[in-house]
Amino acid sequence: MWSYIIVLFLGSVVAEYKYETKWFKVPLDHFGYQRNETFNIKYLVNDDNWDRGGGPIFFYTGNEGQIELFAQHTGFMWEIAPQYRAKVVFAEHRYYGASMPFGNKSLDNEHIGYLTSAQALADYADLVDFLQGDSNRPSYPVIAFGGSYGGMLAAYFRIKYPHLVAGAIAASAPIHMYPGMVPCEVFHRIVTSSFRIANDKCVENIRKSWTVLRTFLGTQNNSEWLQKNWNLCDPVKSPSDINKLMEFLQSMYETLAMVNYPFSSDFLMPLPAQPVRSVCQYLNQTLTGQKLIEGIGKVVETFTNYNGKSKCVDYKKGDDYGNLDAEGWGYQACTEMIMPMCTTGKQDMFEPSPWNFTQYAEDCHKKYNVYPRENAARIEYGGERLRAASNIVFSNGLLDPWAGGGILNSISNTLTAVVLIDTAHHLDLMPSNPLDPATVRMARDIHKQNIDKWIREFREYNKSKP
Amino acid sequence: MWSYIIVLFLGSVVAEYKYETKWFKVPLDHFGYQRNETFNIKYLVNDDNWDRGGGPIFFYTGNEGQIELFAQHTGFMWEIAPQYRAKVVFAEHRYYGASMPFGNKSLDNEHIGYLTSAQALADYADLVDFLQGDSNRPSYPVIAFGGSYGGMLAAYFRIKYPHLVAGAIAASAPIHMYPGMVPCEVFHRIVTSSFRIANDKCVENIRKSWTVLRTFLGTQNNSEWLQKNWNLCDPVKSPSDINKLMEFLQSMYETLAMVNYPFSSDFLMPLPAQPVRSVCQYLNQTLTGQKLIEGIGKVVETFTNYNGKSKCVDYKKGDDYGNLDAEGWGYQACTEMIMPMCTTGKQDMFEPSPWNFTQYAEDCHKKYNVYPRENAARIEYGGERLRAASNIVFSNGLLDPWAGGGILNSISNTLTAVVLIDTAHHLDLMPSNPLDPATVRMARDIHKQNIDKWIREFREYNKSKP
Repeated sequence: MWSYIIVLFLGSVVAEYKYETKWFKVPLDHFGYQRNETFNIKYLVNDDNWDRGGGPIFFYTGNEGQIELFAQHTGFMWEIAPQYRAKVVFAEHRYYGASMPFGNKSLDNEHIGYLTSAQALADYADLVDFLQGDSNRPSYPVIAFGGSYGGMLAAYFRIKYPHLVAGAIAASAPIHMYPGMVPCEVFHRIVTSSFRIANDKCVENIRKSWTVLRTFLGTQNNSEWLQKNWNLCDPVKSPSDINKLMEFLQSMYETLAMVNYPFSSDFLMPLPAQPVRSVCQYLNQTLTGQKLIEGIGKVVETFTNYNGKSKCVDYKKGDDYGNLDAEGWGYQACTEMIMPMCTTGKQDMFEPSPWNFTQYAEDCHKKYNVYPRENAARIEYGGERLRAASNIVFSNGLLDPWAGGGILNSISNTLTAVVLIDTAHHLDLMPSNPLDPATVRMARDIHKQNIDKWIREFREYNKSKP
Repeated sequence: MWSYIIVLFLGSVVAEYKYETKWFKVPLDHFGYQRNETFNIKYLVNDDNWDRGGGPIFFYTGNEGQIELFAQHTGFMWEIAPQYRAKVVFAEHRYYGASMPFGNKSLDNEHIGYLTSAQALADYADLVDFLQGDSNRPSYPVIAFGGSYGGMLAAYFRIKYPHLVAGAIAASAPIHMYPGMVPCEVFHRIVTSSFRIANDKCVENIRKSWTVLRTFLGTQNNSEWLQKNWNLCDPVKSPSDINKLMEFLQSMYETLAMVNYPFSSDFLMPLPAQPVRSVCQYLNQTLTGQKLIEGIGKVVETFTNYNGKSKCVDYKKGDDYGNLDAEGWGYQACTEMIMPMCTTGKQDMFEPSPWNFTQYAEDCHKKYNVYPRENAARIEYGGERLRAASNIVFSNGLLDPWAGGGILNSISNTLTAVVLIDTAHHLDLMPSNPLDPATVRMARDIHKQNIDKWIREFREYNKSKP
């Protein structure tokens, strides 16, 4: 009945999160009645500390992956629950993890169409209403939490369902990363600057490496050498193999920048502390030719096999490497979550690649038989025009490439930005760690002050009503 | 290219509304991608007065009927547009009028499932975004207007899409008429009290009439007499005929109370000024037996044939009498728009009939192959918990039975209630008339003050942004 998540630091157990796994029935389609199927979403719950007389509900709006992963890495909620006498709930996003409407056929093109953020939010709304007791006047304030896409959902949950959610902590939520809102190169510019902080040479070596690798792989025999030297599962033979390898490498650098935490972590994949600095040690002097390729190989090894358990590097996974079981994300990115990305090779260390929505749309159509709706998310969630919303904290670490699409300036005194100059992707939501920088500890204090205020407002309003 | 609506008073033209009819492409399903069809909704537009440099857009959120009907009867928008240099837009609700996704098959059970308020609001959101120029920083403030279900939509539009709508005038919007929110008998209690204001005897006669009629129709020959005396198109023979007649009569009294305007109007159907008082003249003394039935017959005649153009009374239409081409509403009432209604025969003048959700749900299933989601609208739109919303005026006339589900007390200083003690259903939105009571003129002034404020706020915020 109970399950446990163990948090380790330097090999020692530093925390243990205990939860029950439950299931909640939701309609396949909240916004129409043509299809009347229902299915179950998973949620994890712990009410050991809960004050049933009116304690808050801390509600994690699950994102693109199995919910246990986010429960494990959102230590902030677990750590503050006792002092708030809060119930802790982690809700899994439909079409991820075990929350599959059509079992193992869910991700087929014939069944995947109900995978949208609006449907997921409506699932969470039904679940919160149930947890609050199906009541017009619930006594339990709900605080939404989320990181990354989960942070977008936490913010949107408060924006769209403010009657159900007293406030939201939206960590590293790139809610401005939509077409026409920020320059398409911003993400990779930040990846690059995170590497530059480690050392300049690292950036120069990576920037050079693309041409060197492509030239090198132009010769048939070199492919064998590379497979052996980099311990690749498959050889790199065809032009499409080469492109896949480049995609894998680019994604590796992006991920390293995202999870550039001060401690060793296994979020997304097992990595050393300060992974960007760690991999850049292999690229900290000017390298050329095969030496450069060997250096990159060391980076690949750190990225894929820090715990020594990987047999070989499955580069053909491209950007799907790691723990995140996010197969459905490709579909979301091809429908409503359109986040234009481009590289210039100048402000960043990547091969130049422009953003081409027409091409992107055609690729989506080929893959999923669907065309993206370029403006859907902006129209549904407000784009830059959020001032009518309230009670959301947007936190962003400036080392995190996603900060390029985040809210970095407060919009009003109830829509506030918290900027952490020296952290990566939603570190503030993670389990506290002795290696946390002071900024993160401050951000968590600010979060708590806001949560205090939202709960106080909720209770005062409840009292004031006849 | 241009069309015109003529407003008459006492046979003279008092106003002329000129508009272009346009069409706007929307997705069949805004919240999913399984079905990727699109279709066109109709909208009427007049920009003769519009200040293209930043004039407001007055946007009517169409309700259950063809949009021309609402354009004709929402004179308030037309009348104030010149002084605001506003563009006037009336958007038709999907599945009503000519805005049919599947042509004349749209209302079949296989095609009707995308008829929901959320989809309609998303249509309006796309249209407003288009009218504002697909922009993150539009210069045109949008004010939403609506009456009745259209008033609910105007309020929900601001609640769900505050980035698109600066404020909303929600007239006679029964947004509390959902399960568990107000007593089910409230609607018919107000119908009855509107008749009681005309005269007490009227109520007593109507209350008696149900039994008298049922007893009378128990005798075969009386059916012929009734058909002739009441000019019915069909005889009233079977028990189901009798029930249909009772349904027609009950709906007649409800409608008379709703449209109890101080002037002769053809909204819903042509009726004399103060129609409740007008019909109660036939029931203003204690009547029994056949005299009572003849009296009710006079009421029926006034209701169905005030303009003398009706051949006979098609009572088999039950509650579908009148101009409102609202065939889809039955489906909405069976899916999300669950508005519990009951009669007691004590606080009201109707045959007692309890509210039975189980029975209601089964009837819906039989008719549409769908079960209602009892709490869907409360969860989606907030029920009683609206305090996080802003910039909505809720106006209600206390003669209007729908006021029983309306917001009669201000929720905050940006969610304000306007109560008109002596008016019926959304009179404040109608063309001004010399017979308007002072309360209506005051309400319209309050509306204008709020619209002024919302436009001012919009412009000040736009100016303040870098």
